[in-house]
Amino acid sequence: MTGAASDDLRWMDVALALGRRGLGQTAPNPAVGCVIVREGRVVGRGRTAPGGRPHAERVALDLAGAAARGGTAYVTLEPCAHRGATAPCADALIEAGIARCVLALRDPDPRVDGAGAARMRAAGIEVVEGVRAGRAARDQAGFLLSRTEGRPFVTLKLAATLDGRIATATGESRWITSTEARRLVHAERARHDAVLVGAGTVRADDPDLSVRGFPVPRQPVRAVLSRRLDLPLGRLAATAREVPVILVHGEGAPGDARTAWDAAGAERIAIPSPRGRHVDPAAALRALAGRGVTRVLCEGGGTLAAALLQAGLADELLVFGAGVALGAEGRPMLGALGVDALADAPRFALRELRPVGPDTLARWGRA
Amino acid sequence: MTGAASDDLRWMDVALALGRRGLGQTAPNPAVGCVIVREGRVVGRGRTAPGGRPHAERVALDLAGAAARGGTAYVTLEPCAHRGATAPCADALIEAGIARCVLALRDPDPRVDGAGAARMRAAGIEVVEGVRAGRAARDQAGFLLSRTEGRPFVTLKLAATLDGRIATATGESRWITSTEARRLVHAERARHDAVLVGAGTVRADDPDLSVRGFPVPRQPVRAVLSRRLDLPLGRLAATAREVPVILVHGEGAPGDARTAWDAAGAERIAIPSPRGRHVDPAAALRALAGRGVTRVLCEGGGTLAAALLQAGLADELLVFGAGVALGAEGRPMLGALGVDALADAPRFALRELRPVGPDTLARWGRA
Ligand SMILES: NC(=O)c1ccc[n+]([C@@H]2O[C@H](COP(=O)([O-])OP(=O)(O)OC[C@H]3O[C@@H](n4cnc5c(N)ncnc54)[C@H](OP(=O)(O)O)[C@@H]3O)[C@@H](O)[C@H]2O)c1
Ligand SMILES: NC(=O)c1ccc[n+]([C@@H]2O[C@H](COP(=O)([O-])OP(=O)(O)OC[C@H]3O[C@@H](n4cnc5c(N)ncnc54)[C@H](OP(=O)(O)O)[C@@H]3O)[C@@H](O)[C@H]2O)c1
Repeated sequence: MTGAASDDLRWMDVALALGRRGLGQTAPNPAVGCVIVREGRVVGRGRTAPGGRPHAERVALDLAGAAARGGTAYVTLEPCAHRGATAPCADALIEAGIARCVLALRDPDPRVDGAGAARMRAAGIEVVEGVRAGRAARDQAGFLLSRTEGRPFVTLKLAATLDGRIATATGESRWITSTEARRLVHAERARHDAVLVGAGTVRADDPDLSVRGFPVPRQPVRAVLSRRLDLPLGRLAATAREVPVILVHGEGAPGDARTAWDAAGAERIAIPSPRGRHVDPAAALRALAGRGVTRVLCEGGGTLAAALLQAGLADELLVFGAGVALGAEGRPMLGALGVDALADAPRFALRELRPVGPDTLARWGRA
Repeated sequence: MTGAASDDLRWMDVALALGRRGLGQTAPNPAVGCVIVREGRVVGRGRTAPGGRPHAERVALDLAGAAARGGTAYVTLEPCAHRGATAPCADALIEAGIARCVLALRDPDPRVDGAGAARMRAAGIEVVEGVRAGRAARDQAGFLLSRTEGRPFVTLKLAATLDGRIATATGESRWITSTEARRLVHAERARHDAVLVGAGTVRADDPDLSVRGFPVPRQPVRAVLSRRLDLPLGRLAATAREVPVILVHGEGAPGDARTAWDAAGAERIAIPSPRGRHVDPAAALRALAGRGVTRVLCEGGGTLAAALLQAGLADELLVFGAGVALGAEGRPMLGALGVDALADAPRFALRELRPVGPDTLARWGRA
């Protein structure tokens, strides 16, 4: 929004930073941030708690107590107006005597969508909307996409040599990128609701896919796309009761594989899939959204990454580059895309570029 | 050097920045910078002039005039002590009454190699050596390598999609990187003595390879590696009398091709080359060094780039990345490297990372 007072922008930035800290922990609820300011001082602040409740406004109001009266609430998403597990936040702000409410985004949830703002206005609160809307929409893209398109936000992680290779011709790939880069991948996992890989990666690496190295209030779900469920019962199966595993597979997957994974405690989602074709990635993502997943980190491999790109389903690319070259015999970081003309190739805009240890990190978003 | 006074470091940095501005214009002479300081103020400054003469010290002394007396001279390379086209710079500094001389590097040229410093010391000048030696050695790597190993410094330019592709399967490649990136490539050409490509690039693109878009005191030589000289007589031939063209080819190249290029005004260097094998890249670089080339910018293609990497002849990689993906069918940025084990792959250390327009630029140096 242009013309917003600089104080409003500044406090909204604080609320946005707070909200972002909840990414990956609040699904299916949005990760909202809230700051309550009175006479130029913060009297309350909060973010949606891990698990999705209490909401950010509730946390901030509880902290502020009586000091909230007459203050301004900065909220990164329109407060809810419908009765869920707790009282609607719009009502809570009214009851607390908030005089002014500055919002970044409307909540597209049909049960809200302007109703929260309207209810506050009706109660005499001055409501300002659209402050830092762009930044908020980017932060909350997962929540917004799952509400509006029924699919999660997809971040594609790619890690390769400076010439785009992920392994030698003989398959050696440990380690191309540095420990610093791998640590950052774990931090990214924590900011997503689910980590997704293709069956090929499970067959090749038997990965664990959980967040390791630091405590997280909630581990991301581990999801695998596999048409026929021909996956080794390895690390994922062994830990499926501690950290959820969701297998998205074709309807033709054999019964014994289904039974084995059920027995291990994994969740399965069967997707109608035409004979001899991959599981439709759009359908798979919709299925994950149906399980409350709003943000997916896809960690490969190259075949699945290419399928997501080709289907226009990659919202953000997180590309790590190591200072090593493997040449044309090395395995490519992306599978076939079927792109003939440059004009048809998926294009992205640079969002972030920095060194991570000895490697580079480029974050690309939709152009 | 540790322990150098912070003033010395600061003035040497100024001299280094000056010297760097001459890269690509002074070969076979080094691009030296010189600052003369008296009582904390710059009284003279200079860099090796385009063409290699006058030397930086001469330029700075002429500017300082009588004010040089009693001052400190900061020089990025040991002043010469042998009589060339002009009087040795060591003598000039002595005659001008310089009291103190701070040097970054010794000149490995056997006619100097400590003799310049010794002569100044004998004349009563206090000489400090090794200040910012590392930075200076990097700047002057071309000069140093040509003196010590008889080959130029090689920068490999690579421009590709975020997945390391330089063209679609059908060969479409205009334009993957942005005008900003391409402009920067022209600036890099100007900082090198020669631009080098493989025969494949000439056959595919008929490139011009000159610096365009801004004036340069001296265009880099345009060099092509081609075993049998089967190159179209295109833009390079048409302009060979304005900007030098050097063709490095095998001894078996046919006579008519030789004659045609000679008639166009190109220079040729025949290299002994075993039947059916590529021109040896090390021999080709030695031949270019013999023609006074100290810094080469290799602009591809992928086959030649891989050959240089494989032979350990790539000193710096300049990698542009565009925000577009082409997938595994796209043409790879590097040809086959013959690397089986990750431990044997050429490794580089990150020197610079920044956006260039919508693209990324990563500069990698020897690890
Ligand atoms: N450097 C890195 O960052 C990195 C990251 C991950 C993996 N890797 C490496 O990549 C290799 C595995 O990659 P990959 O390309 O072979 O396998 P992948 O992309 O992990 O998995 C591909 C497989 O996933 C299944 N799949 C299900 N739905 C799909 C869809 N819609 N689109 C595409 N695939 C779908 C298919 O197997 P089904 O027939 O069973 O359905 C397909 O063969 C391993 O060597 C691993 O080490 C590297
Ligand atoms: N995106 C970019 O930045 C960029 C830059 C440059 C080129 N390109 C593209 O790359 C393609 C050309 O690349 P390319 O790989 O086919 O050809 P290249 O690397 O330009 O040239 C390879 C040819 O150079 C000759 N050569 C001589 N000595 C050699 C040696 N020691 N090692 C290797 N080659 C030697 C060989 O031809 P002889 O048998 O004649 O000796 C060889 O076939 C074109 O499509 C061009 O558009 C892209």
